[in-house]
Amino acid sequence: MTTLQIALARLAEELPAGSVITDAASMDAYRWDRTNSPATGMPLAVVRPASTADVQAAVRFAAATGTPIVPRGAGSGLSGGAAAIDGCLIVSLDRMRGVEVDPATHMATVQPGALNAEVKAAAATHGLWYPPDPSSFEISSIGGNVATNAGGLCCVKYGVTSDYVLGLTVVLADGRAVHLGGPRLKDVAGLPLTKLFVGSEGTLGIITEVVLRLIPAQPPRTTLVATFPSLSGAVDAVIAITRAARPSMLEFMDRTTINAVEDATRMGLDRDAAAMLVIQSDERADAASEEISLIEAICLSHGADECFATSDPDEGEAFVAARRMAVPAVERLGTLLLEDVGVPIPRLGELVTGIEEIAAEHDVTIALIAHAGDGNTHPLIVFDRQDPAQRERADRAYAAVMALAIALGGTITGEHGVGRLKQPWLGDYLGTDVLELNHRIKKALDPQNLLNPGAMLA
Amino acid sequence: MTTLQIALARLAEELPAGSVITDAASMDAYRWDRTNSPATGMPLAVVRPASTADVQAAVRFAAATGTPIVPRGAGSGLSGGAAAIDGCLIVSLDRMRGVEVDPATHMATVQPGALNAEVKAAAATHGLWYPPDPSSFEISSIGGNVATNAGGLCCVKYGVTSDYVLGLTVVLADGRAVHLGGPRLKDVAGLPLTKLFVGSEGTLGIITEVVLRLIPAQPPRTTLVATFPSLSGAVDAVIAITRAARPSMLEFMDRTTINAVEDATRMGLDRDAAAMLVIQSDERADAASEEISLIEAICLSHGADECFATSDPDEGEAFVAARRMAVPAVERLGTLLLEDVGVPIPRLGELVTGIEEIAAEHDVTIALIAHAGDGNTHPLIVFDRQDPAQRERADRAYAAVMALAIALGGTITGEHGVGRLKQPWLGDYLGTDVLELNHRIKKALDPQNLLNPGAMLA
Repeated sequence: MTTLQIALARLAEELPAGSVITDAASMDAYRWDRTNSPATGMPLAVVRPASTADVQAAVRFAAATGTPIVPRGAGSGLSGGAAAIDGCLIVSLDRMRGVEVDPATHMATVQPGALNAEVKAAAATHGLWYPPDPSSFEISSIGGNVATNAGGLCCVKYGVTSDYVLGLTVVLADGRAVHLGGPRLKDVAGLPLTKLFVGSEGTLGIITEVVLRLIPAQPPRTTLVATFPSLSGAVDAVIAITRAARPSMLEFMDRTTINAVEDATRMGLDRDAAAMLVIQSDERADAASEEISLIEAICLSHGADECFATSDPDEGEAFVAARRMAVPAVERLGTLLLEDVGVPIPRLGELVTGIEEIAAEHDVTIALIAHAGDGNTHPLIVFDRQDPAQRERADRAYAAVMALAIALGGTITGEHGVGRLKQPWLGDYLGTDVLELNHRIKKALDPQNLLNPGAMLA
Repeated sequence: MTTLQIALARLAEELPAGSVITDAASMDAYRWDRTNSPATGMPLAVVRPASTADVQAAVRFAAATGTPIVPRGAGSGLSGGAAAIDGCLIVSLDRMRGVEVDPATHMATVQPGALNAEVKAAAATHGLWYPPDPSSFEISSIGGNVATNAGGLCCVKYGVTSDYVLGLTVVLADGRAVHLGGPRLKDVAGLPLTKLFVGSEGTLGIITEVVLRLIPAQPPRTTLVATFPSLSGAVDAVIAITRAARPSMLEFMDRTTINAVEDATRMGLDRDAAAMLVIQSDERADAASEEISLIEAICLSHGADECFATSDPDEGEAFVAARRMAVPAVERLGTLLLEDVGVPIPRLGELVTGIEEIAAEHDVTIALIAHAGDGNTHPLIVFDRQDPAQRERADRAYAAVMALAIALGGTITGEHGVGRLKQPWLGDYLGTDVLELNHRIKKALDPQNLLNPGAMLA
């Protein structure tokens, strides 16, 4: 046995039986994330810790042997941040799924492998709510949500994951475990390290526990669905709505997406519409009707040809579900490159028009969905994986969309993270100085570059 | 002239006339913060930049000459973070006061010297609101608020400063200026450096511009004032209220404070009450009455002997103003050591009882006010500055209160910052490992230790 194999055998002995997996077939379930990138590597081993102490043991093994670590939640990531690299140790948090809700403090203490939906459900039993709601909330883990500072549909009113993280337990690159923050709404003692780890994509430490702030359950939502004969009308309506109201959801789908969803659901969406908005208000009773009426008037004044409002939560949820299934529905058209660019709201029109031009110029289909209310769009670039020329055009379109977002004062990733997929473009967005700052922080906390190397930072 | 004097003269030439102050009398206005600590030093010079470029020039001077920098907003700090040290360059941002509100994006771009109240006023002209409201909001600057991650009265519902900071321009220790984040609700490209600077107390860089998120104007508030014959009744009511409702303010004053405020205002407060709560709801109309009725019932069931509710905003504001003037009112009783400890809400009773015991044990007066709804208390330790023995007992009580908060799972500072005053206790709170992490970040961004040395970190 090599030294590495001996060390790995020792780790397996140290941990509960079955925690370390080394056969290729079993490891396959832990190698990929949802990007399914062909660049995904073959790990040395997968470890499935059951506790912070187990994670520490895994990290100490990695530090001692110089083995790179790829931490992993539920593997639902869209940027390759949890995809294996050759010879790495995958640290999968899927067995650490505890959720404890404290109704007295309106907080939850959660292990990283718990799914977002499990946290929401546990909170709901106490009349409480954990707002962040990535479309993947039923299959994505809190650890992954925190690592990417995940967004979602209600961010337009309720903010992102970082706004709800009060405390973290983190295993550092040298195997020490530290507690940052905690169950306190206010705490300014020392540098704000808790927030530094939210969105750090596993590059600074491995999160093994999260203290989340909860708020009272969201009132029943009133939903408005508006269809538009023109893209620009829909976009102008979005800009006017965010100026005048504060919806709890403001989602956008273009014609390609509407048709893909209609193909999948046969729910009777208007296939001829250029765009559709799905809007919700969670104000109470009268205030919700008022807000939705105001928004409906805005939509109509921007040329909406149909508006449908309902205060029946189930009826409304059907449209939200349609929006949430947009990615799998469009996926039926071909392989996807899933973009995640965002711009300041007033530039949304230029972004949408520019994306249309990029699609035409590169001769690829780009379906467009957006968390429109916060300027965060997901252009879905569709290509045929069997056609290398098309694949290459899709890749060029992908880069062009990011360049466009940057030119419009926007970001290359609003909520999915940089991961391995967008790492080559991070410098274009941040510029040399801020990129260098990123590297300085990384080096200060992980001098051996053991933690998720190649994700976010080169 | 010494090399240092030559370099300083060059800096004065480089900046607009009058930007550099070196005579002792004029510098005195920039040396102190509100701690008025006798340890406050004598600066080499004060620079009053008018732009980011001016700040860069000042920092380059400091880096070239090894001169420590103390950045400064409005000097209203309560932890000595902006107090001069001997031979330092004070960088006072008091001339950089621009505020631009963008009603289309609900954001404000603000220079650091603008007062919190000026931002609130500018937002209000567009029907918008900047929530964070430290009691000092009329005299404290946004730069200082961001540097300390300031809290306030509405945090219990609306969160702290960090929750509203989307972007920063920061001058780094080597004089480079960087833009972090920006006018985007979602942006996860790179490490979350924006948040790292919020609460960093001027130790990592000098903030020269802030992009703030605004929300629609707060509806008129309904106010409830409840007095209690026992401290424990009031505290238990607080815990029950936070469990059942979501007030936009939940403030606490003890008997000593009530009497000091009554001495100053003669507004007719109940001098015999053991404690008084000032509570507000900013739900709309009916929902506010409902919430206040629920809270009133909770107060009564915990032994409140008087409850007074009003939906007249001015009448309510009089009680809030009374609460805000608590510190100056208690200051009439003697010199203050102003504490800022916080605990998880369920431990609030133990903290309050423990503080009473510490006061008795050390034979000092401790008046207690609290942002009770988020567990953040301000014990005001009163002493006679002419009596060295009493001063020493007050100092010991100050340390004992922090030790108590730590023992109860709380923090040594909820919203004022560590500064120079609490720096000696930071390690007791954070522990060796987290303190060391703080130092690693500090060293990575400010290897010469030029930026606010001695504040927060030793």
